[in-house]
Amino acid sequence: MYSPTIQKLIDIFSKFPTVGPRTAARFVFYLLKKPKEEIENLISSINELKNNVKICKLCFNPFQGDGELCEICQKPSRDKSLLCLVEKETDLISIEKTKKYNGLYFILGGTVSALKRADIEKLRIKELEERIKNHPEIKEIILATNSTTEGQATALYLERLLKPLNKKITRLGRGLPVGAELEYADEETLSSALEGRK
Amino acid sequence: MYSPTIQKLIDIFSKFPTVGPRTAARFVFYLLKKPKEEIENLISSINELKNNVKICKLCFNPFQGDGELCEICQKPSRDKSLLCLVEKETDLISIEKTKKYNGLYFILGGTVSALKRADIEKLRIKELEERIKNHPEIKEIILATNSTTEGQATALYLERLLKPLNKKITRLGRGLPVGAELEYADEETLSSALEGRK
Amino acid sequence: MYSPTIQKLIDIFSKFPTVGPRTAARFVFYLLKKPKEEIENLISSINELKNNVKICKLCFNPFQGDGELCEICQKPSRDKSLLCLVEKETDLISIEKTKKYNGLYFILGGTVSALKRADIEKLRIKELEERIKNHPEIKEIILATNSTTEGQATALYLERLLKPLNKKITRLGRGLPVGAELEYADEETLSSALEGRK
Amino acid sequence: MYSPTIQKLIDIFSKFPTVGPRTAARFVFYLLKKPKEEIENLISSINELKNNVKICKLCFNPFQGDGELCEICQKPSRDKSLLCLVEKETDLISIEKTKKYNGLYFILGGTVSALKRADIEKLRIKELEERIKNHPEIKEIILATNSTTEGQATALYLERLLKPLNKKITRLGRGLPVGAELEYADEETLSSALEGRK
Repeated sequence: MYSPTIQKLIDIFSKFPTVGPRTAARFVFYLLKKPKEEIENLISSINELKNNVKICKLCFNPFQGDGELCEICQKPSRDKSLLCLVEKETDLISIEKTKKYNGLYFILGGTVSALKRADIEKLRIKELEERIKNHPEIKEIILATNSTTEGQATALYLERLLKPLNKKITRLGRGLPVGAELEYADEETLSSALEGRK
Repeated sequence: MYSPTIQKLIDIFSKFPTVGPRTAARFVFYLLKKPKEEIENLISSINELKNNVKICKLCFNPFQGDGELCEICQKPSRDKSLLCLVEKETDLISIEKTKKYNGLYFILGGTVSALKRADIEKLRIKELEERIKNHPEIKEIILATNSTTEGQATALYLERLLKPLNKKITRLGRGLPVGAELEYADEETLSSALEGRK
Repeated sequence: MYSPTIQKLIDIFSKFPTVGPRTAARFVFYLLKKPKEEIENLISSINELKNNVKICKLCFNPFQGDGELCEICQKPSRDKSLLCLVEKETDLISIEKTKKYNGLYFILGGTVSALKRADIEKLRIKELEERIKNHPEIKEIILATNSTTEGQATALYLERLLKPLNKKITRLGRGLPVGAELEYADEETLSSALEGRK
Repeated sequence: MYSPTIQKLIDIFSKFPTVGPRTAARFVFYLLKKPKEEIENLISSINELKNNVKICKLCFNPFQGDGELCEICQKPSRDKSLLCLVEKETDLISIEKTKKYNGLYFILGGTVSALKRADIEKLRIKELEERIKNHPEIKEIILATNSTTEGQATALYLERLLKPLNKKITRLGRGLPVGAELEYADEETLSSALEGRK
């Protein structure tokens, strides 16, 4: 139905997260209407992304600038005894936005669903073990995975993996989120909220 | 459009919680199709509700049976040093279902939104003060209101009201509910989850 | 968890259309809080429904008043050559609200899903055949079933059943509803909209 | 919070249709993980889009190939007496998918909301008038705008504009879409469905 070039770009955009073929088509027609400069701006930005953005050697957070470490890992005032493990880059951003955490991070790069080898190999397990081994100043490891089934499976896997290292291992607190009603809360969440009352 | 009797019953059902005129009409046509015995069963059940169900003198929970106290308030094994304040009956049920709470309850009968006198007068404030005064064995008062804006306003109001009584006052723990993703959690919830890590 | 009387009424309300156990519980607690007069008003309205509301001998529409025919069937100005077949009472009301139809109705009392005998027996087929036979003034039969799979199966079944009667048989027009966008319309709807352009 | 290059690309993607900042961030992290070849493939596809895709001189549909006309406008078997006016490229595709239309198209390039001059100037009005003037073989003009408020306002505007040309002007048929229930249909749609019965 579409010209080959349009179809090719629809196929590429369709693989973007959350994008289906219909939205991908809208992206292409959106680009078709844009003036030349805006298209060039998009292309040069994508190129810059590939050329300028580095991945932090310590936490795997993307960053720009000199050296091998990202802004957070470089900052002297961050508490180096705290290591927060997150699934992905946007989770790190979510935690930073709270301004309640002053430790360091490690981006796992994914989750495990049912402890399948294929899943585990996608995580940066070796790099994580290395990081903890080389940084004896780490005292607490926070397993900040989602509280979805996959996130919990990942936390459980990491807990077992890291246990022999004799560090304090914690998870994010469970309870009622802002706006929640008791009537619609699941029993596990409500149990946690009761136990965690203060 | 509808016959007067049908319209009258639609109007009554439309006032039921969560019911609009369209659903109310479906209720009426549903009843119209039911055999006589089922209608009589409904009517006698509503009558029984009014005649047999009493309100517990202590916690205001509806109950059936002898005496003035509900099953929970009568039970010797419940921990009488804990008093959990809830907005409404279904919240009490939600907490009971967790099987993690063994104290007593008090049903407030509503929430306050903006500390308006009209709202406050709907709550059983006098009865609550009486309850706490007459039961010095109460050591902890749990403000188990929703974590909605109204629930929080109510908790705040109660906290100020009960402060002079010198009891331990707690609130349900905040944090990530089961199934939540960090990326979509609001900052306040995520902050609580971080602070409440364990 | 609930007292027997409360549980019994929750069970009854849970069978109401669109109502689950949680909403049913809210209905019961809502009734518990109502003053005696309102409860008596509800009960007398349900009783009136059973005692005062009759079912029209011709179209099966519930009505109040003298005689055996509903207001619509009695009205001399209605066009008796048009017979509109609808699934249920609320569909009749929906069509009346448009003020664009001046014929008579027949309420089928249900739909057939896959031409199962059990489904067909729930419809008023015999009564429908009787109605058409006894009213030779009927010239057009409008199959005003939903355009869902079940509604379409019912229309197809009726079309075959009524074909030998040599009446004009029509269906509601297909096309784009108010507010629809071409981009999200299914192909069948869009095809009908194209064919039905005017 | 993000590095400048990441933020810049998030800002660009945030302007894509249906994309907000959170999804835009996911796009960027998705691209960051992709190997060099995939990024180059994306960039070359965007470049090809700008370089290879032409806009049809007749209907304004994007196309690839020799000449100035798109595949549809070139095809001898298409019925040149029919002209279908659509808001945008994806609407043309939606109609083509039905395989029920064999005429030609004209892409308006937008909609008017309240007959504001700024809106009208965004439409290809002059080009449309030119098209119709130069093609006296056109007998019917189909106003295939959405049946949203804006689409209807656009159709009304076009109807008035094209009236003096003495061509047959039609609109897409209104009625119940596939899957619709009478109970939830608005009165206007149901009225159209009644009038358009067949």
